[in-house]
Amino acid sequence: MLATKGYAALKASDDLKPFTFERKEVGPNDIQIEILYCGVCHSDIHQVRDEWGGSIFPMVPGHEVVGKIVKVGDAVTQFKVGETAGIGCFVDSCRTCPSCRAGEEQYCDNHISFTYNGTYKDGTPTYGGYSNQIVVDEQYALHVSDKLPLEAVAPLLCAGITTYSPLKTWNVKQGDKVGVVGLGGLGHMAVKFAASMGADVTVLSTSPSKKEDAEKLGAHHFVVTRDEEQVKSVAGSFNLIINTISAQHEYDFYLQMLKLDGTMVLVGIPPEAPQVSAFNLINKRRRLAGSMIGGIRETQEMLDYCAEHNIVSDVEVINIDYINEAYDRMMKNDVRYRFVIDMASLK
Amino acid sequence: MLATKGYAALKASDDLKPFTFERKEVGPNDIQIEILYCGVCHSDIHQVRDEWGGSIFPMVPGHEVVGKIVKVGDAVTQFKVGETAGIGCFVDSCRTCPSCRAGEEQYCDNHISFTYNGTYKDGTPTYGGYSNQIVVDEQYALHVSDKLPLEAVAPLLCAGITTYSPLKTWNVKQGDKVGVVGLGGLGHMAVKFAASMGADVTVLSTSPSKKEDAEKLGAHHFVVTRDEEQVKSVAGSFNLIINTISAQHEYDFYLQMLKLDGTMVLVGIPPEAPQVSAFNLINKRRRLAGSMIGGIRETQEMLDYCAEHNIVSDVEVINIDYINEAYDRMMKNDVRYRFVIDMASLK
Repeated sequence: MLATKGYAALKASDDLKPFTFERKEVGPNDIQIEILYCGVCHSDIHQVRDEWGGSIFPMVPGHEVVGKIVKVGDAVTQFKVGETAGIGCFVDSCRTCPSCRAGEEQYCDNHISFTYNGTYKDGTPTYGGYSNQIVVDEQYALHVSDKLPLEAVAPLLCAGITTYSPLKTWNVKQGDKVGVVGLGGLGHMAVKFAASMGADVTVLSTSPSKKEDAEKLGAHHFVVTRDEEQVKSVAGSFNLIINTISAQHEYDFYLQMLKLDGTMVLVGIPPEAPQVSAFNLINKRRRLAGSMIGGIRETQEMLDYCAEHNIVSDVEVINIDYINEAYDRMMKNDVRYRFVIDMASLK
Repeated sequence: MLATKGYAALKASDDLKPFTFERKEVGPNDIQIEILYCGVCHSDIHQVRDEWGGSIFPMVPGHEVVGKIVKVGDAVTQFKVGETAGIGCFVDSCRTCPSCRAGEEQYCDNHISFTYNGTYKDGTPTYGGYSNQIVVDEQYALHVSDKLPLEAVAPLLCAGITTYSPLKTWNVKQGDKVGVVGLGGLGHMAVKFAASMGADVTVLSTSPSKKEDAEKLGAHHFVVTRDEEQVKSVAGSFNLIINTISAQHEYDFYLQMLKLDGTMVLVGIPPEAPQVSAFNLINKRRRLAGSMIGGIRETQEMLDYCAEHNIVSDVEVINIDYINEAYDRMMKNDVRYRFVIDMASLK
């Protein structure tokens, strides 16, 4: 077993503290990654606080992992020692169900092994990227280009793919009108991707203070959602809305901004079930949908797309002993737009 | 003006009674239809009882109209005296907005003139098909084949197109698994259409007594939704669910029956806004959508399809003085599957 250092919550809502644990040895199909950076996702907080139920403790969070490969198993064919690799939200899946066979492992019908707060097929718990190293089957690892700053690549593994995937699924193209609700870790990536695909992008936000940032990120329009006139001006106008808000809010308010056949995609899970007017759906054949991260194939496609189009996340790099303060600041939306842990700070 | 006989509600929730009123004369672009049959839609009851608000009285309901053309205006090119014609849910629209230009007049952005409980562009109220004659612009009339029994064609103008349209929009094809929730006026048409398109059709119903009927209509499977085992057997299985229920119910119960990328289409408007779990949408990239009747072009396509495939509605023909009892029976789901008024009974 590999003695590993990390930061963990020992029980729900505990502060994260230094924690040592063991990882499996590198098997024939595995690669071992020395972690350089790990992004801090809002879902890390949800799960540390057991807000979705069923959390497994001790919990080492982290599923936006970038690092250097330091060892590969005998049967590994796609990765070499010294290369840069990434790991996203899952490290294994059943590999046999229709979703897995279609390369949409995130929708695995059987057992998906989430990168943390999950279990491997043998039932042992998974530990995430707030740690110095990780071992993963090469089928669930990603190639990362060294062209981009690696600390800013890390959040692509969750925030990036979560927003890239629905833009591709709903086939966003030149001239489409795309609305982005919420300008946080997910929202800022949605803006960058949608703009890069040629869409006409509008950020919908309660905070007028984010207008300048939205424009810098590539948005063409900014709507303050507390301003009735501005809201009226976008009624029935969007082909697609990417809704990144995971707090309770009024979904109909945004649904009525969709044009005929438009779709609002939820990528955040609010604590209570959304309520939506059937009339608002029926009277313009609108659709409300959900989307969850992306499969390995599409995640690789997204990373390659980012290298090609020079797209990364806007990050604030922190030392790992700052993580609890970082969580507090995230709860106040006080980060532009993603905290990333520099794992060199883990002693 | 044309002196016209019909049945009307004089105020909300009144019984329908004989009523005489005037219709506009036949203009250059109009056709005058002597009504032979008019279907009785559940929305007639909703509107007579002012359950959606804003009802206009006196109200002559009826938007499933079939009859003989008795007069045509000088500029009419598509219809001739003596032909059979139909009128559905609307008799005019703005004709200039993107929806109208796309032949999706039902989603008109400006003013759509519903066949009853609506107004013409000049503000005068529209009166529907529970009457002996109607005058309509030829652009909003449909050609009806004489191959099929006309009393059974009438409900195609609303119940038919309301279920045909989403099956076409969501591109149902050979082998697709389609669920139909609720086996009433809309549901029984959804089953016939989906089966005719080669889909594998399952009726989902609370009433085991409808199994035999469902199979006669063309359904391949029948799930009693109170039977846990049967419900479990269809989890994650449907490409498309046509949900015809307009009463309050649990939407998540049906959403979880959709497979990856599946869609549930609402064609009924419940009194309260549906609540749907974001998790249920996100964890299989599912979609909840709405669909409203169909445009003139698609309605004509549907009527032609029905003539070709020998599809009609299952009807119980009634005299018009039975209409109030018919409403009471519809409230108890006591009709298989559509009442149609024989207008010869209107003296």
